[in-house]
Amino acid sequence: MSAYDPDNIFAKILRGEIPSQTIYEDDDVLAIMDVMPQAEGHALVIPKAPSRNLLDADAGGFGALFSAVQRVAKAAQTAFEADGVTIQQFNEAAGGQSVFHLHVHVIPRHMGVPLRPHTGAMADQALLAEHAERYRRALA
Amino acid sequence: MSAYDPDNIFAKILRGEIPSQTIYEDDDVLAIMDVMPQAEGHALVIPKAPSRNLLDADAGGFGALFSAVQRVAKAAQTAFEADGVTIQQFNEAAGGQSVFHLHVHVIPRHMGVPLRPHTGAMADQALLAEHAERYRRALA
Repeated sequence: MSAYDPDNIFAKILRGEIPSQTIYEDDDVLAIMDVMPQAEGHALVIPKAPSRNLLDADAGGFGALFSAVQRVAKAAQTAFEADGVTIQQFNEAAGGQSVFHLHVHVIPRHMGVPLRPHTGAMADQALLAEHAERYRRALA
Repeated sequence: MSAYDPDNIFAKILRGEIPSQTIYEDDDVLAIMDVMPQAEGHALVIPKAPSRNLLDADAGGFGALFSAVQRVAKAAQTAFEADGVTIQQFNEAAGGQSVFHLHVHVIPRHMGVPLRPHTGAMADQALLAEHAERYRRALA
C-alpha cells in the first residue's frame, strides 16, 4: 500500500482549498455531497484525520466516523424520503477507491431504483447545494 | 422501519442454533464467511447486540464493530492476497439488505475482477471452511 498523499482532493477540501457542499462538520468529520452522485442525495463522510483508507486508519476514530455516518443516513430518510440507505467504503483501486483519503459513501435508496453507474459526469452545483441544504435541515 | 425480529438468521447463528464458518469472535462481534460469496473470501462482521441495521443501532458499538471490520479487511490482504477490499453495509430492502440484523460485508478484491452477481447460490461448505481457516491463520 502506498503512503498517504496530502494533496488528494479530500485533503484539499478539508483544508478549504477546494469548495464543497457541506452537510455537516464537527471536530472529527466533514460530510459533503458527492459531486458524482450515484443517486439523489449521495453523500460522503470524511474523517479529518489523515489516512489512505480503512486499512491504515487509526481504529480509535471509527466510533466518531460511523456515528456521523449513522446521523447522515438517518437524515437521508427525512431529506430524500429514502426507503433505504446503502453504505459503501472502498479500499485501494481494486476495491473501488479513487480518492485516497478514507471516506464513507452514504447513498439514499428508493425501492426498485438501481444505483446510477459511475460515469464521471459532475452534477449541477446548484442542485448539490439544494441537496446539502435538505440534509442540513434534516440534521437541525 | 419494522421492529427487530429475533428469529432472523444471524440472530440464530449468534445463538448457536445454526452453524457458520467462524473467522473471529469476541465479546462484541462475530465474523463469519458469507454463504453466498460475491468474491473468494467474502466475510460478514456481525455485532452481537441486536439491531435491525445501522439506522437503529446503538452508536456506542460502532468502534468495536468497525475495529473488527478493519482487522478482517487487513487479514483478507494476507489470506487471499487481495489487492483491495470493498466494504458494504445495507439498510432496509431498498438499500440492499436481506437479513435484518446489522452486518458489514468485507469483500477481498483483485484488480480487474468484478464482484460476482448475487445469484442466491450457496457456496460449497468445505471451501468456506478452508477460507475461514485462512482468515484465522492470518488473524493469529
